[in-house]
Amino acid sequence: MAGGKGMASHGGGPYETGLDRNAANYAPLTPLTFIERAASVFPDRTAIVHGAIRRSWSETYARCRRLASALTKVGIGPGDTVAVMGANTPETFEAHFGVPITGAVLNAINVRLDPATVAFILAHCEAKVLLTDRELSRTIAPALASLERRPLVIDIVDDSVEGGELLGAMDYEAFLATGDPHFPWRGPADEWQAIALNYTSGTTGHPKGVVYHHRGAYLTAVSNVLMWDMPANPIFLWTLPMFHCNGWCFPWTLALLAGTSVCLRAVRVEPIFDLIKAEKVTHLCGAPIVLGTMGKASVELTEGLPPGVKVLTGGAPPPPSVIERMEQMGFEVTHGYGLTESYGPALVCTWPGGDDSDDMPLAERARLKARQGTRVPMLDEMMVADPETLRPVARDGETLGEVFLRGNTVMKGYFKNPTGTEECFAGGWFHTGDLAVWHPDGCVEIKDRSKDVIISGGEKISSLEVESVLYRHPAVLEAAVVARPDPKWGESACAFIALEADVEIDERDVISFCRRHLAHYKVPKSIVFGPLPKTPTGKILKNVLRQRAKALALLV
Amino acid sequence: MAGGKGMASHGGGPYETGLDRNAANYAPLTPLTFIERAASVFPDRTAIVHGAIRRSWSETYARCRRLASALTKVGIGPGDTVAVMGANTPETFEAHFGVPITGAVLNAINVRLDPATVAFILAHCEAKVLLTDRELSRTIAPALASLERRPLVIDIVDDSVEGGELLGAMDYEAFLATGDPHFPWRGPADEWQAIALNYTSGTTGHPKGVVYHHRGAYLTAVSNVLMWDMPANPIFLWTLPMFHCNGWCFPWTLALLAGTSVCLRAVRVEPIFDLIKAEKVTHLCGAPIVLGTMGKASVELTEGLPPGVKVLTGGAPPPPSVIERMEQMGFEVTHGYGLTESYGPALVCTWPGGDDSDDMPLAERARLKARQGTRVPMLDEMMVADPETLRPVARDGETLGEVFLRGNTVMKGYFKNPTGTEECFAGGWFHTGDLAVWHPDGCVEIKDRSKDVIISGGEKISSLEVESVLYRHPAVLEAAVVARPDPKWGESACAFIALEADVEIDERDVISFCRRHLAHYKVPKSIVFGPLPKTPTGKILKNVLRQRAKALALLV
Repeated sequence: MAGGKGMASHGGGPYETGLDRNAANYAPLTPLTFIERAASVFPDRTAIVHGAIRRSWSETYARCRRLASALTKVGIGPGDTVAVMGANTPETFEAHFGVPITGAVLNAINVRLDPATVAFILAHCEAKVLLTDRELSRTIAPALASLERRPLVIDIVDDSVEGGELLGAMDYEAFLATGDPHFPWRGPADEWQAIALNYTSGTTGHPKGVVYHHRGAYLTAVSNVLMWDMPANPIFLWTLPMFHCNGWCFPWTLALLAGTSVCLRAVRVEPIFDLIKAEKVTHLCGAPIVLGTMGKASVELTEGLPPGVKVLTGGAPPPPSVIERMEQMGFEVTHGYGLTESYGPALVCTWPGGDDSDDMPLAERARLKARQGTRVPMLDEMMVADPETLRPVARDGETLGEVFLRGNTVMKGYFKNPTGTEECFAGGWFHTGDLAVWHPDGCVEIKDRSKDVIISGGEKISSLEVESVLYRHPAVLEAAVVARPDPKWGESACAFIALEADVEIDERDVISFCRRHLAHYKVPKSIVFGPLPKTPTGKILKNVLRQRAKALALLV
Repeated sequence: MAGGKGMASHGGGPYETGLDRNAANYAPLTPLTFIERAASVFPDRTAIVHGAIRRSWSETYARCRRLASALTKVGIGPGDTVAVMGANTPETFEAHFGVPITGAVLNAINVRLDPATVAFILAHCEAKVLLTDRELSRTIAPALASLERRPLVIDIVDDSVEGGELLGAMDYEAFLATGDPHFPWRGPADEWQAIALNYTSGTTGHPKGVVYHHRGAYLTAVSNVLMWDMPANPIFLWTLPMFHCNGWCFPWTLALLAGTSVCLRAVRVEPIFDLIKAEKVTHLCGAPIVLGTMGKASVELTEGLPPGVKVLTGGAPPPPSVIERMEQMGFEVTHGYGLTESYGPALVCTWPGGDDSDDMPLAERARLKARQGTRVPMLDEMMVADPETLRPVARDGETLGEVFLRGNTVMKGYFKNPTGTEECFAGGWFHTGDLAVWHPDGCVEIKDRSKDVIISGGEKISSLEVESVLYRHPAVLEAAVVARPDPKWGESACAFIALEADVEIDERDVISFCRRHLAHYKVPKSIVFGPLPKTPTGKILKNVLRQRAKALALLV
């Protein structure tokens, strides 16, 4: 138990005497209690839907206990890592409970990573068991081949997809069959114990392993309900990958609410709309790119859509136009901001509601909703501050500062990386590396990553601001803006643009468009057309573009 | 901080190395963060309405900080007790934040107690400051007079009522004026620190002081939202006294949701319905007796009532007929069960919802809703078990056992009462003293207090069951059933009945009514008509009735 006898705070006296923790009045916080309760209180409610599969909470809990039991039999316990290379299927969902029930740590791997990175992760986290989806064997096979110590491999075989090869000792169902559905277990002895490990996909260097604990996962699961005003028994469509911050901790939230998970392997517009209608989906999450995909739905697809489906977006700043399109289709969009280090959502752009705001024109509403917002209920403190002095900036909507977070829903630290942990927690705050302004209403608006800011003639230019103007140009498919060395100004903005198919515009068109929407010094001085380089997860490689911009400067 | 270095759990290894608690990733749980956040994120939303008074969350927070500052100036700090003898007014609400901000403990006193009991409480809790409502001076003046050490007395002067006298050094507003609205504060260093002290009004002996901590208050505030499926920004009518388990922790829930508190001094049917309509109330709580009062509303009063106002009832088993009447008027009733020792709600009768259950006849629905239900989300464990062996009883809806609770929302213990604390936590479970059956669907149904069970010819009779049949007789106003020594059966049921005005029935009418609705052995063998003896809080004094029943047996 955390604390315990002898940890009495200031004061002491009769309020601290004979009133210690005991088995009746103290239990470590863990989201594992949620599934036990869901199975006990709502045994027959549907927990998960995947194709023809439809399982109740009592069935799902029995499968999670089988998994825990099977893992225990092969030697898994506290301090061990179990990795999952899984799509959004029941198996990945079950791993969020079955693995921590054993006391071990779940490492859900981003399925879009390349074999070398996956191999790095499996070695770094010292995975003893790997659950891997057959469809992903093309990545996993070479990753496993390069490992010195191969984990026990269990194949997840999803009949809804073909292809891929079996790599493991046995398949997931056979493995479950070795386990006891009534496996007796206790939660962690200490709520600070690790529950999950998530590697951040940085654009440079090795990925860093972010460690979550049971307390933080419990509180984030609760915070999700409160920040999004979720009712009991939501029907949740898995448009968000479960490997992103453990699906922003929503597997645990769904157990808390005894909700239904509707699985989805691939983000494609038809199955999304079909499932929303067929399963009466009430909630879904996704990065702005998912919303962008949904925005391309045909009129036929959007017909018969239930009104007011709630959409939570985050992971990158959503262009207001994307929010606007979603709301036109009848979705209710909420925008959150977070990082892997904050278990997912840390800020949320809470809609004020009421007559004034609800009558607001859609475009204005979308612009306001595109801001990152204010802290979620379970995040204890947040500030926009000077990165050097940690002094909060003025709430004037103009002064740029870094976003700092603090509280129980901030990670334990980086795995086997004490220097990185110490640096990111310097001064007793978590440094997000995101630059933002603080509005008078308390809302934060992200302007840039620290390293993406461009300083031109002493003025700071937010590459994000320039990009968001470029995105409003109808011919622009994708845009990225970086600093280019400039003999006169020090740096200037350089824009890399991928155009929509079958359109033709030139540099001058773009520059004159930017002049109409940006301060003069912010307008890109050079424009480069062509496809943008990306990471396997789809992040634009700004460091590559920076090199190109440098080379460009040398050419002139 | 609870725990900290050196508290690593089993396992250890890289997940426990260099990943300690620090200011960035750990904060003690306290509901005080909720008001800070409400004031920061929703500064202009209405926090409280009382007559002509209407204050926002930023104003309310400033007043709470003033109160904390003023208390600090008179020497209040961690380990101290501040007592409040207050009606449901803004001052009592503010004390729930202002007092713990100083680190001190809030003792909200039941305003219906007699002077001697209040004096006992003030002495036992060693109150250094007493905030007291002028209207309650008739109780407080004699209580103070009998104290050896008089606390600093501050008068709450509510202009909405007349009468009473000023007893204190100054009034509440003058006291607030001595405080700083920007008072800087930190939460408790340890979440196990006491936040509140609530005396239970037992029917025998001295009241026991139940100690709450910040962690439990935080989790109960959250649990209330989840158990009742509360949306953001509810409008909450204070039909429940704030001195009952700190209003079941709802002052903190309302800060968490940035909801509105609509104050109400006295439970009378007209103001309740007028306020529901005028303030568009969405939620209210109350004991069954409050619902009984509301059920007497005239047709005019119920006209124009907003549909679907949510009502949470608990504190005593509600007669199904009371629930039925409320639902007929359009209220949505949820029934919870709890004790002072469980911060209020511990079980909730969650309505299954769905087509089957929603089409159920009202009476059947009311009967099911009258059961006590299953555990709330933040209560970790619950069982109905044999009081001796602690072995769970069968979930057959028939076997009687005691209700046991366990988890973070169970009190620290009884204040200055180590023996009582140890006894109630024997075996690592909190013993509620309530007897219940466990239904196959997991729902608990309370049948009696342990000491109220009647054993007749070896068969257990639930006095509650007999009472609930008696209440269905149209002539019965109040009923209480106790054991009466019986030469043949050991004990038999003896009913004390207060009749409605202007009706006349006799013993035989009652017995034949009971025969139609009860097993033969459960039918009372003797009936006594007349008013029932009660505590100042309105609880029927069953121990007095037991003495009378004994005397009756001797007479025969």
